[in-house]
Amino acid sequence: MTATTSPVLSPHQSSAVISAPGERFRAARRQTMYLCQPLTPEDMMVQSCAEASPAKWHLAHTTWFFESFVLREFLPGYRVFNADFAWLFNSYYESFSAFPEKRLRASFSRPGLDEILRYREHVDEAMERLFEREPEAEALRRIELGANHEEQHQELLLTDILNAFYTNPLKQRYREQGTKGTREQENREQGNAGTKTQPLGFAEFEGGLREAGHAGGGFCFDNELPRHRVWLEPYALADRLVTCGEYAEFMADGGYRRPEFWLSAGWDAVKQNGWRAPLYWSDSEGEWNVFTLRGELPLKELAATPVSQVSFYEADAYARWAGRRLPTEFEWEAAVESQPVEGNFLDSGEFAPVPSTNLAQDQNGTKYYGDCWVWTSSAYLGYPGFHPLDGTLGEYNGKFMSGQMVLRGGSCVTPVRHIRVSYRNFFAPETRWQFSGIRLAK
Amino acid sequence: MTATTSPVLSPHQSSAVISAPGERFRAARRQTMYLCQPLTPEDMMVQSCAEASPAKWHLAHTTWFFESFVLREFLPGYRVFNADFAWLFNSYYESFSAFPEKRLRASFSRPGLDEILRYREHVDEAMERLFEREPEAEALRRIELGANHEEQHQELLLTDILNAFYTNPLKQRYREQGTKGTREQENREQGNAGTKTQPLGFAEFEGGLREAGHAGGGFCFDNELPRHRVWLEPYALADRLVTCGEYAEFMADGGYRRPEFWLSAGWDAVKQNGWRAPLYWSDSEGEWNVFTLRGELPLKELAATPVSQVSFYEADAYARWAGRRLPTEFEWEAAVESQPVEGNFLDSGEFAPVPSTNLAQDQNGTKYYGDCWVWTSSAYLGYPGFHPLDGTLGEYNGKFMSGQMVLRGGSCVTPVRHIRVSYRNFFAPETRWQFSGIRLAK
Amino acid sequence: MTATTSPVLSPHQSSAVISAPGERFRAARRQTMYLCQPLTPEDMMVQSCAEASPAKWHLAHTTWFFESFVLREFLPGYRVFNADFAWLFNSYYESFSAFPEKRLRASFSRPGLDEILRYREHVDEAMERLFEREPEAEALRRIELGANHEEQHQELLLTDILNAFYTNPLKQRYREQGTKGTREQENREQGNAGTKTQPLGFAEFEGGLREAGHAGGGFCFDNELPRHRVWLEPYALADRLVTCGEYAEFMADGGYRRPEFWLSAGWDAVKQNGWRAPLYWSDSEGEWNVFTLRGELPLKELAATPVSQVSFYEADAYARWAGRRLPTEFEWEAAVESQPVEGNFLDSGEFAPVPSTNLAQDQNGTKYYGDCWVWTSSAYLGYPGFHPLDGTLGEYNGKFMSGQMVLRGGSCVTPVRHIRVSYRNFFAPETRWQFSGIRLAK
Amino acid sequence: MTATTSPVLSPHQSSAVISAPGERFRAARRQTMYLCQPLTPEDMMVQSCAEASPAKWHLAHTTWFFESFVLREFLPGYRVFNADFAWLFNSYYESFSAFPEKRLRASFSRPGLDEILRYREHVDEAMERLFEREPEAEALRRIELGANHEEQHQELLLTDILNAFYTNPLKQRYREQGTKGTREQENREQGNAGTKTQPLGFAEFEGGLREAGHAGGGFCFDNELPRHRVWLEPYALADRLVTCGEYAEFMADGGYRRPEFWLSAGWDAVKQNGWRAPLYWSDSEGEWNVFTLRGELPLKELAATPVSQVSFYEADAYARWAGRRLPTEFEWEAAVESQPVEGNFLDSGEFAPVPSTNLAQDQNGTKYYGDCWVWTSSAYLGYPGFHPLDGTLGEYNGKFMSGQMVLRGGSCVTPVRHIRVSYRNFFAPETRWQFSGIRLAK
Repeated sequence: MTATTSPVLSPHQSSAVISAPGERFRAARRQTMYLCQPLTPEDMMVQSCAEASPAKWHLAHTTWFFESFVLREFLPGYRVFNADFAWLFNSYYESFSAFPEKRLRASFSRPGLDEILRYREHVDEAMERLFEREPEAEALRRIELGANHEEQHQELLLTDILNAFYTNPLKQRYREQGTKGTREQENREQGNAGTKTQPLGFAEFEGGLREAGHAGGGFCFDNELPRHRVWLEPYALADRLVTCGEYAEFMADGGYRRPEFWLSAGWDAVKQNGWRAPLYWSDSEGEWNVFTLRGELPLKELAATPVSQVSFYEADAYARWAGRRLPTEFEWEAAVESQPVEGNFLDSGEFAPVPSTNLAQDQNGTKYYGDCWVWTSSAYLGYPGFHPLDGTLGEYNGKFMSGQMVLRGGSCVTPVRHIRVSYRNFFAPETRWQFSGIRLAK
Repeated sequence: MTATTSPVLSPHQSSAVISAPGERFRAARRQTMYLCQPLTPEDMMVQSCAEASPAKWHLAHTTWFFESFVLREFLPGYRVFNADFAWLFNSYYESFSAFPEKRLRASFSRPGLDEILRYREHVDEAMERLFEREPEAEALRRIELGANHEEQHQELLLTDILNAFYTNPLKQRYREQGTKGTREQENREQGNAGTKTQPLGFAEFEGGLREAGHAGGGFCFDNELPRHRVWLEPYALADRLVTCGEYAEFMADGGYRRPEFWLSAGWDAVKQNGWRAPLYWSDSEGEWNVFTLRGELPLKELAATPVSQVSFYEADAYARWAGRRLPTEFEWEAAVESQPVEGNFLDSGEFAPVPSTNLAQDQNGTKYYGDCWVWTSSAYLGYPGFHPLDGTLGEYNGKFMSGQMVLRGGSCVTPVRHIRVSYRNFFAPETRWQFSGIRLAK
Repeated sequence: MTATTSPVLSPHQSSAVISAPGERFRAARRQTMYLCQPLTPEDMMVQSCAEASPAKWHLAHTTWFFESFVLREFLPGYRVFNADFAWLFNSYYESFSAFPEKRLRASFSRPGLDEILRYREHVDEAMERLFEREPEAEALRRIELGANHEEQHQELLLTDILNAFYTNPLKQRYREQGTKGTREQENREQGNAGTKTQPLGFAEFEGGLREAGHAGGGFCFDNELPRHRVWLEPYALADRLVTCGEYAEFMADGGYRRPEFWLSAGWDAVKQNGWRAPLYWSDSEGEWNVFTLRGELPLKELAATPVSQVSFYEADAYARWAGRRLPTEFEWEAAVESQPVEGNFLDSGEFAPVPSTNLAQDQNGTKYYGDCWVWTSSAYLGYPGFHPLDGTLGEYNGKFMSGQMVLRGGSCVTPVRHIRVSYRNFFAPETRWQFSGIRLAK
Repeated sequence: MTATTSPVLSPHQSSAVISAPGERFRAARRQTMYLCQPLTPEDMMVQSCAEASPAKWHLAHTTWFFESFVLREFLPGYRVFNADFAWLFNSYYESFSAFPEKRLRASFSRPGLDEILRYREHVDEAMERLFEREPEAEALRRIELGANHEEQHQELLLTDILNAFYTNPLKQRYREQGTKGTREQENREQGNAGTKTQPLGFAEFEGGLREAGHAGGGFCFDNELPRHRVWLEPYALADRLVTCGEYAEFMADGGYRRPEFWLSAGWDAVKQNGWRAPLYWSDSEGEWNVFTLRGELPLKELAATPVSQVSFYEADAYARWAGRRLPTEFEWEAAVESQPVEGNFLDSGEFAPVPSTNLAQDQNGTKYYGDCWVWTSSAYLGYPGFHPLDGTLGEYNGKFMSGQMVLRGGSCVTPVRHIRVSYRNFFAPETRWQFSGIRLAK
């Protein structure tokens, strides 16, 4: 995509606090366009694994969401951009319309990127007209949901592009490092050796009868409700994520060859898929390399960064090898409740985001957010009294409450505005294409 | 198998209370043999679905368990029956030995049934010698575990044989009904119309901070421990299981064609597998029949019996259609805690066990046990502080804590001695070959 | 692709007779570019079935062929355009280099189309330098092979784009019909109702001891050699191809539901894939439509055009239903030997080629070439004494002599220069994405 | 099966010349029973690969053939043994009745072996009544076909049992060697070192216009007709089969790792299935063993016996490695036409048949028959003018004429009466469970 298609925020601007609905909407829309800047129209066609969608599809589907659930219902006289798009860019909402099989998205060469960009502009302009009319409360709720939905797809877009570039045998990088440099460079310049890791510590928590789930008036997804009581026994949580270097020790100790560390289904996955390292690790003449949005990097440079792109099964096996366990989602939530939402996020000033070496316990205490989503030992299920949204939007979260595990805390490709203490991400336990890592508990 | 191979208990004898370890062991061993009486050596070769094993394999594997974990360790001078059996009849204990792939069990024509019966006698005799020596505590614990293990395989043996006879195009029946008759016959004779169902009622429970998991000194599996506190919001539980007749209404209302009732993974299963009824239902000229251990019966005769052989997905969809939900495992356990373990079990005097029409709320109140395992909405996970048994036997339960749902309460093919309030059964949500049914909650 | 990227021949110019090696080369290269004119860079990324490759890949791979087998060996000082392309665009030549799995071609967003076009220009310019040096005989042979190779990929490119546009749920058309009009239009204007079909006649042949395989000095592939004797019994060949209208009668007579017409493997394919019509036929409210390079057309408009995109199994079943059989490749060759190579080919002036209604037996006699490849009943095997080319190019044809059937005669997407009487095309019997049709024999 | 169930011929008796229809029938029926003598009812339940059927099914299906195509039509008043058997034991005759999927045969525990044996007796007795009535010509033709059909299943029965015993992890042997000894023993006793191989020679043939297909009045299958002319170029055929020792040299030279020897589809099969030796070879501490009907034997004892259980792809790759090729089926037939049908067959006096070391060119010249079926380079297609039998029996051979290769000459498990010069066996090129070997041509 050429740099001129759309005015964009720099990542630093985009991390400013944005509160008015219009600003919230515009910031989300600009951020998506910014992320596409390094991509060609051809890059935006690639769908390289079953979990992924083409970047162009993400551009269209997020726009479809506003058209379908906001403009068609709340903007009188709204003219639909293209009647076919109503079903073409529906992802999985059975009660809205029929929709194409996911794997067909790679065949959507038409509409071309140009037309998708016009679609975005058409919808964005109509949204501005809606904002001028002071939209009613339900419309504002839908807009808030739509902005959050778009942020989810920003994260997916980068996750999918990383897979696309990894699949391309030429192993393209998403972005060169910016002139401003990265945290690692800054660390190195300031004499902080980025490859040295602090020893792992544990923070202890008392447990007891706690509350979990979203509280207060801000936005949340239906799956974060209702807030409810849970009983927790005393526990402890690691003060940082497991690093690539530590994970390499697990591998060197036969981690992928010793069934005693693995759940039975995990061991089946190891054997069937031939797993012997995290998804983007590859070895060349005895040395491991890791493919990132910055291209392929030697493991030894990343030894102190959090391990990423591991499945739940690998996280669980690592924990067992280490004599620890994974936390439940409620342990994580109770521990983090009083912490500010700070960490290495999509908006943190990295041009090509990767998990950061800056894991150190600083004066402000442990950071629990960002870098990598944390696999928890909790299955993704409805809270007591859970009720999906009414109507089509009820298909958003509830229908996936089967066979998945909860992840918490966001990653280096999550927009900071998107995350909160009660946020529940979820993936099947064999999923590896996400920025998913490991925080130990005991 | 001929009726003369082994002295057997009648089902009525076998339900007597048995407390001494030797009696416990002998009762379990006799019960297994009794269940094989209607089977030919050829029947005992069949392995008709991925979940199933041949009956002969069940005979051998339960024997292997006592040989491997009791006799080899605790009976000095024990002579192994056949060194090859140590790995041949290992099911999945990676740390014990290599073992054949499960699907190969159908090729075990040798050792023949005669040899397997000699293996059983060899081990049974050695066990008697051990009992004479007053075995040490750990040996007694292993024997208790082995008896429970054998009871699990009794249930599997009948479940598997039902599938085998269903797969045989001639649709064999396991047993003719006995001369003594069945509960349904008795009901009919006593004027209790077996096909009339009481209206569904709900019993209400207060919830609060409760304890779950095994308490007291008796036997339990490691996955029932530790006993721990859970917080429950107020809830209500149906006073009987959902019947075949009620389930047929769900089908008639488009249950299998309307995605709005289904979890996304469940809807995928419906489409991929072409599900349109429970596993053993088939239609012939507009009428549904249900295949049971008593052969194929018309649905209309079974309208008042609990629906069985449904997956978690179907149970969950039914509940959503009915405007209810499935209970959590803790709701079930808290509700049932004070109830006696009574119900329609393997030892209940049926020659060819099926779920019973006798669901009625009698003077003693609701029956929560037996007939069909109840799918809960709880994923099968370790309790807080869960620790598997040490050593090889630690592979018994813990390694399956992924991707499965908990079932509670036992079924018409569960030995009554085997069940208790804290008992946790578990299967993948798409599993349909079990005697698994539906109890609603709200 | 924009129309300005390359000077192109119109299809009429390109059908001129071209004999000098340079002209042969240039005509092939121009034709490829001409075919890409209606395509966007995004279209050229799509790989919509296992048989297909992205159009961009075809552009690159045909260029790679000249670079790898001509320039690197015969142009002193040739500078390779990009060292990675040597393996990246290798299709399957195991002895040349490693190569990416075919399914990965959809991930080649980089190199972008711009770079592939520069690659083509780089190689084309180097070829011109080679032509100036009067290349040696082996180089000329390789150039001839490369031009034929490129023509094969022209055909594949259109075949693959048809599938890509069919897979896109919006069902794009490749090209509008040109201003000049099509044969059908001409026919209609001249009062020849394009939808009336002449009754099928048969031409009789004596057979006897005949010769088959390439004769004379022109180019041929190794699989057309050596010319050898075959004995043919007397036979007859239909004087035109089977039409869509005739095929629809087979369907209406239960063709896809009656196993008696099908080879056992064909019947399995029908059941497994749910075949009930040729690949691009779909029904809508009781009417069949056919998807073509001109978009979706009603079957009734195509009733008199040859049926296309049928598998060998369907061709064979149709023939059995019709009380006929398919010809052997030698029967076809002996019958056609004395015929001029005339018919509806890629260069025949159609802007969006489809099989033509112009099947009529004209004064010059039956036309045997063009429109659709004819499935023969001959398995694709080496002729007696067959010897593949030496070296890497020996992997061109011989290694595919297993499990495939021979097709003869070319289709509406075959360049006319490419075809000859001894030409052997080959595909697996279940293949349906080709312009493959039916000529009956008896 | 106990030895007392049926009077049987010894193998020596059964090889006597049998000409009267009744004798032909009885000999075939006795031979089947003789082959089952070493098998238990449980052995006869095993179906260990997709190609195989349980031995019990072979017993029933061959009986079904006589009941369905002879007795029901030609014996007035014939009482069907069991109406269900008509469809239960139908293999694949679509026009006769529906039939169970092949993979379900492993679930046929009922009818038990006892009942199948009674079915055989019932049919055999009815056949005797038919013989007393002097059956009409068509009945005699069907009986002849049925006897040949049963002989085919005798061969399959042993092929399948070898696979069953190989799949059983205990690696059972079919039969101990008999007291009388084997040819190898006799050879050794007579000082003929069985492990020494004569150098491979080639017999030369002139070719020319020859006739192929069945001639004369005896029985043949429809696929051997019509006799027709073929043109053959001069060729040469090896004077013995390729041995295990020679094949081991191909393996040692990287045969399974070098794509240059393989057809493309064959190389795919090597990679997908992990082939690195013939089907029943396994290595243990650097030494290869071969599993046979006599149990597992060291390769070094079998170095001079023909290699068996190789696929067409392996045969073809071996030939290319050796600088030779496989013969066409017509080359084989023309070369062998004048040879007596002699060789190592099922009736050759081996208790547990295996390919023999007795490959030597004796005074009578080269032996072309027996030991192993010879893969030819000919696809299995209909001869010019081929016409299947009318009616249901037309589904016998013709519908399989797709995707298979022809094998010639019979093997050590083929009844000698069953084979003739025009006999065409056929299997898919990846098939390995047959006694299939290699005879080179040039």
